[in-house]
Amino acid sequence: MNKKTYTLRELVEFLSAEFRGDPNCVITGITSLDNAQVGQISFLNDSHYAQYLATTKASAVIIKAEHLDENYSGNFLIVKDPYLAYAKISALFDDTPEVTPGIHVTVVIGEGCEISKEVSIAPYCVIGRMVKIGSGVRIEPGCIIADEVVIGDGTRLCANVSLYHKVKLGSRVLLHSGVVIGSDGFGNANEKGVWRKIYQLGTVVIGNDVEIGANTTVDRGAIGDTVIEDGVKLDNQVQIGHNVHIGAHTAVAGCVGIAGSVKIGRYCMIGGGAGIVGHIEIADRVIITGGANVGKSIMEPGGIYASGIPAIPHRSWWRILARLMNLEKLVQRVKLLEEKTK
Amino acid sequence: MNKKTYTLRELVEFLSAEFRGDPNCVITGITSLDNAQVGQISFLNDSHYAQYLATTKASAVIIKAEHLDENYSGNFLIVKDPYLAYAKISALFDDTPEVTPGIHVTVVIGEGCEISKEVSIAPYCVIGRMVKIGSGVRIEPGCIIADEVVIGDGTRLCANVSLYHKVKLGSRVLLHSGVVIGSDGFGNANEKGVWRKIYQLGTVVIGNDVEIGANTTVDRGAIGDTVIEDGVKLDNQVQIGHNVHIGAHTAVAGCVGIAGSVKIGRYCMIGGGAGIVGHIEIADRVIITGGANVGKSIMEPGGIYASGIPAIPHRSWWRILARLMNLEKLVQRVKLLEEKTK
Amino acid sequence: MNKKTYTLRELVEFLSAEFRGDPNCVITGITSLDNAQVGQISFLNDSHYAQYLATTKASAVIIKAEHLDENYSGNFLIVKDPYLAYAKISALFDDTPEVTPGIHVTVVIGEGCEISKEVSIAPYCVIGRMVKIGSGVRIEPGCIIADEVVIGDGTRLCANVSLYHKVKLGSRVLLHSGVVIGSDGFGNANEKGVWRKIYQLGTVVIGNDVEIGANTTVDRGAIGDTVIEDGVKLDNQVQIGHNVHIGAHTAVAGCVGIAGSVKIGRYCMIGGGAGIVGHIEIADRVIITGGANVGKSIMEPGGIYASGIPAIPHRSWWRILARLMNLEKLVQRVKLLEEKTK
Repeated sequence: MNKKTYTLRELVEFLSAEFRGDPNCVITGITSLDNAQVGQISFLNDSHYAQYLATTKASAVIIKAEHLDENYSGNFLIVKDPYLAYAKISALFDDTPEVTPGIHVTVVIGEGCEISKEVSIAPYCVIGRMVKIGSGVRIEPGCIIADEVVIGDGTRLCANVSLYHKVKLGSRVLLHSGVVIGSDGFGNANEKGVWRKIYQLGTVVIGNDVEIGANTTVDRGAIGDTVIEDGVKLDNQVQIGHNVHIGAHTAVAGCVGIAGSVKIGRYCMIGGGAGIVGHIEIADRVIITGGANVGKSIMEPGGIYASGIPAIPHRSWWRILARLMNLEKLVQRVKLLEEKTK
Repeated sequence: MNKKTYTLRELVEFLSAEFRGDPNCVITGITSLDNAQVGQISFLNDSHYAQYLATTKASAVIIKAEHLDENYSGNFLIVKDPYLAYAKISALFDDTPEVTPGIHVTVVIGEGCEISKEVSIAPYCVIGRMVKIGSGVRIEPGCIIADEVVIGDGTRLCANVSLYHKVKLGSRVLLHSGVVIGSDGFGNANEKGVWRKIYQLGTVVIGNDVEIGANTTVDRGAIGDTVIEDGVKLDNQVQIGHNVHIGAHTAVAGCVGIAGSVKIGRYCMIGGGAGIVGHIEIADRVIITGGANVGKSIMEPGGIYASGIPAIPHRSWWRILARLMNLEKLVQRVKLLEEKTK
Repeated sequence: MNKKTYTLRELVEFLSAEFRGDPNCVITGITSLDNAQVGQISFLNDSHYAQYLATTKASAVIIKAEHLDENYSGNFLIVKDPYLAYAKISALFDDTPEVTPGIHVTVVIGEGCEISKEVSIAPYCVIGRMVKIGSGVRIEPGCIIADEVVIGDGTRLCANVSLYHKVKLGSRVLLHSGVVIGSDGFGNANEKGVWRKIYQLGTVVIGNDVEIGANTTVDRGAIGDTVIEDGVKLDNQVQIGHNVHIGAHTAVAGCVGIAGSVKIGRYCMIGGGAGIVGHIEIADRVIITGGANVGKSIMEPGGIYASGIPAIPHRSWWRILARLMNLEKLVQRVKLLEEKTK
C-alpha cells in the first residue's frame, strides 16, 4: 500500500535510459524475469537469463544494448548497467513504513543533549547525556544510546540497536536491528593464569553512508578508535574487533570475523564466513573469497585470495583427509623412488 | 516449583509404552543415567551407555526391548525409540514460567491492529500498524513488531525479538531472544566503486512449528520473499540471506551462514558452522556435516557432504600444510619418475 | 572528561614499579608508542616495537629492564610484564560513564524479588518474579530478566541483555549488549521426519569475574546445567551449546561455536572462528588456533591444535585444490612406481 506506480516515461527519465516501446505503460513493481506479472518491470543483466526474455510476462525489461533482441516486441529500457539501474529504481518501490515525526513521550533523554527538531524517535528508546542527534534521524523502538554519542543527519537505527558511550555515526548510516557498536574489545592480560581486563579506552567512529547488518558487532578501540570509513557495507553477524580500520567502500559479507587491529584497504570485498587474524594489513581492492582464513598481511592491491574447501560426498572426503594427514609419508616415498631411479 | 510429578502409570499411558515394575512409583524429573537421583526417570538410547544400567539411581528407565536386561530389577518403560519418548515426556517437566494473560499497560500499539483476546503481551513491547496477532500468542518483554506483521496462533516471541514490516509467522512458532526477522538483505550494485543500495522489496514468510534460536537473523527478500517452511528448526546465530527458501523439517545447527537465493530441500540437516554459497540448490534429505563449505548445487537427494578438517597438533598440521602448498611440485616429481621408469 | 590525571609517582606506586625519571610528570592517558602525545604513558612489551623508543612523544614508557636503553633519556617505569602493567593502569583511565544509583521509575518488577539497595537499574528493564539482585549491580536500559534469575554482587549488564528464567550469574560478571543467556538448547528428536522438541529443563550457571562479549549466546542445559566457571572470558558472537562446561580462566575468542555437552578444561585458549563438535572433552591448558575444527576429544593437557588453512592467491589455491581432490590417484601412481622399481 506504500508502493507507488510509475509510467515507463517517468522511469526512462529517472534512469536517463534509451527506450523502445510504449512510454505510457504503468509499472507497479519490480521482479525477476521468470516470476514477472503484468505491470512489473524486470531486468536482464546476465546473458544466462536471456532465455526468459521470450516468455516473461514483465511489462518492461531493463537491458543492455547487446542483449536487445529484435524478435521480442516488448518495452525496453536500454542502459549500460541493468543491475545498477535495478538498484536505482528499487528505491522508488521501497515500502519501508514511514514513521511519525517527533520524539515519543516515553523516550528517556539525559541532560545536555542536542537533538535536531526533524527527528523521529520511537517508544522506549533511552538516550544518555550530551548526545547529539542530527536532522532527519530515525530511531526505531528499543534503541539504547549511551552518553556522548554523535549521530549524523539522515541516519536510521532499526529496532533494538545498542550504541555505547562516545560512538560517532556519520550521515545516512543505516544500522539494522540487534547491531551493537562500541562494546569492549577482547583485551586481557594474563597474570599467573588469571585474566586481567584491559579497559577499552577508545571508541568507534563510523563514516557516512555506511550500512551495518542485523546483529553485527563493532568493538570500541583499546587505545585509539575503531574506524569504519565512508560507504562501507557490513552484512549480518559480522564481528569487528577493537582498533580495526576498514577503508571506504569496502563490502563485508555475513558471518565474517575480523580480529583486533586489522587494517583493511578501500574497495575490498570479503566473502561470507571468512576470518581475518589480528594485527595484519590488507591492501586496497583485495578480494577474499568466502570461507577463507587470512593469516598474514596482503600488501599488494587488487588480488583475489582463497583457502576454502568445497564440500564433497563424505566418504570421498574422509579418504582424501586420510591421505592428507599422511602427506609427509607420501613425500618420503617419492623421495625414496627418486633415489632409486637416480 | 513449576515442575509437576507423575506416577509411572501416567507416564506409561502417555507414551503408550510396555511396562515392567511398580506403576505407583512417583517421578519428579528427567535426567541422564549416570547423574540420576531417586525419583527421576532416565532413558537408554545407545548401548554405549548400557554400562550405567547396573549402577543408576534412576527410579525408572525408558529402554528398547533389545536392551532390556533380566538381571536389572528396576522399573522399565519399553518403547521403540527411547530418545523420542524422552522428548515427549520432557514437555511434561518443562518449567518455563507461565505468563500473565492480557496486554501490559505499557505496550504501544499502532492503528488498525487485529489482536486476539487470548494473548499475553509483556511490558515495553511496541507493535506497529495493521498487525495481526492470533490466539494464544505470547510476546515477552522488549519485542518490537513493525507494521503489517502477521503472527499465527500459539506463537511465542522471547524477549527482545525484532520483526520488520510485513513479516509473516505461522502458528506455534518459537523465536528466541535477539532473533531478527526481515532485516534488509545484503544487496548493493557497484557504481564506479561506490555501492548503491538495492532496496529489499520482499518480506519473510515463516511456516508453522518453526523454532529459531537466539540471535539468529533472517533477511527479507530482495524481490519476492525469503521462505522458511513448516517444521524447520534453526539453532542460534544462524544467518539466512535474502530469498533463501528452506524446505519443511530441515534442521540447521548453530553458526551456519546461508547466502542469498539458496534453495534447500525438505528433511535436510546442516551441521554447525557450515557455510553455503549463494544461488545454489540443495536436494531433499541431504546432510551437510559441521564446518563444511558448500560451493555448488547438490541435486541428488539424500547424500552426506563434508569438507571440514579436524584439528591436530599444530606442528604436525604446519608440516602437512607446507606439503599441501607444494602439492603441485610433488605431482611433477611423480610425473618425472613415471617417465623415467616407462 | 571522565578521564583522570595521575603523576608518575602515583602510577609507580600503583604498579610497584622501579622508576627512572621525573616523578612529578603528569599523565593524562595511555597510548601506543608510535601514536603517543605529550602527557601520555605508553608501554614496550615486544622488542619488535623498540624502534619507536627513540622517536615516541610519550611522556613515560613502561618497560622491561632488558629493553631499557641508556641512550633514551625519558621517564621509565620498569616492570616484569609491561603488558600486564598496561592492563592494570588501563582501569585508571576507564571512561565508562557512571550511572545514576537506584531503580528507574519505569522498571517493571515481578513479585517476590530480593533486590539490594545499592543497585542501578536503568529505564525499561523488566524483571520477573523471585529474582535476586546483589549489591553494586548495574543493569543498563532494555535488559529483560526472567523469573528466578540470580545476579551476584558487582555484576554489570549492558543494554539489551536477555536472561531466561533461573539463570545464575556470579559476582563481578560483565555481560555486553545483546547477550542472551539461557535460551533453549538445540534439542529435537525425530519422529518420522518431523522434529519433536526436547524441552530444555536445566539452566545456565555462570561463575565470578566472567566477561561475555556482545551478541554471544549461551544455551540452557537440556538435563542439568550449562556451566561457565570463574574467570572465563568469552568474546563477541560466541555460541555455547546446551550442557557445555567451560573450566575456570579459559578464554574464547570471537565467532567460536561450541556444540552441546562439550567439556572444556581450565586455562584453555580457543582462537577466533574455531568450531568444536558436540560431546567431546578438551583437557586443561589446551590451545586451539583460530579457524580450527575440533572433531574429537583432546585428553592431553597443554597442547596446541590447528587445522586452519591460510588464504593464498586464488588461482594457486584452485590448483592445489584440484590436486588435493585427486590425492588418492597420486598415491596409487606412487604405489605403481614402487612396484615397478622393486
